[in-house]
Amino acid sequence: MKKYDEGSTNKNTEMKDKSKELDTSLTLINDKLNFIGSNGYNDPISIDYLPPLGDNLGYTSLELLLLSLSSCIGSAVLTFLRKMNREISFCKINAKGLRREEHPTCFSKIIVEISVGSSNVTDEDMAKVIQLSEDKYCPVYAMIKGNAEINIEYKIEN
Amino acid sequence: MKKYDEGSTNKNTEMKDKSKELDTSLTLINDKLNFIGSNGYNDPISIDYLPPLGDNLGYTSLELLLLSLSSCIGSAVLTFLRKMNREISFCKINAKGLRREEHPTCFSKIIVEISVGSSNVTDEDMAKVIQLSEDKYCPVYAMIKGNAEINIEYKIEN
Repeated sequence: MKKYDEGSTNKNTEMKDKSKELDTSLTLINDKLNFIGSNGYNDPISIDYLPPLGDNLGYTSLELLLLSLSSCIGSAVLTFLRKMNREISFCKINAKGLRREEHPTCFSKIIVEISVGSSNVTDEDMAKVIQLSEDKYCPVYAMIKGNAEINIEYKIEN
Repeated sequence: MKKYDEGSTNKNTEMKDKSKELDTSLTLINDKLNFIGSNGYNDPISIDYLPPLGDNLGYTSLELLLLSLSSCIGSAVLTFLRKMNREISFCKINAKGLRREEHPTCFSKIIVEISVGSSNVTDEDMAKVIQLSEDKYCPVYAMIKGNAEINIEYKIEN
């Protein structure tokens, strides 16, 4: 931890090379814990905490973590299935996080449920692409791995 | 990993006890990687990946991770400063994540820059509340700890 000298470089001018470096910014907008988050390009996100510290005016930090993890897993899974020439008619992903009662009140367990609509995806395909994501191709999974139990489940619908 | 039998319980009826369990959902809305994410209560978030796999139509999963981490640190820091009766006139937090070149392309290093406007917050105060957040009171920090280097920096403005 140290003091820093300069502000952010997160400006909405031309898009940076997001494959190497990513930036976000937060601005507190009330006298409690409601922040507006931005990446400088897309619609801002309202972030808040639970009462009494916050007012439920936005996503909690832990909900953003669930969306980050589940979208990262989903993107890896869909990319691999398409490379295997599997047809995808829809995809929905639900994530649930169970919090510890003591501080830090992080997730002791996260369950990610992937529902894929497809006429030709098999159980073996899903097992393979989920394993690939867990082992190497899901960066957010790699950053949480070891600190919480993560269960990835799936359902194939024709 | 296993198949699951039932869909999500994430319905927009009455708010669940978010102190114990959190839920989010994602729906794929194009034939690439653009998802709409929701917690069932707040404005949906567009999530997408970089071209050519995605179209930059929303936040990347790793940007959501930065917002999750920085808002969690910010909430803990502000809460402690207020408990110490410190005055806060504004707060901005920038986060930057440097990605690995090889898979998994997660962050090798994350820099969180907290800018606090205050007439009575001291360097010692900031050192203390940041240490408390790192040690115990920031759940998202606890879930990434050990998997990426996280540097928290700060600036106090009068």
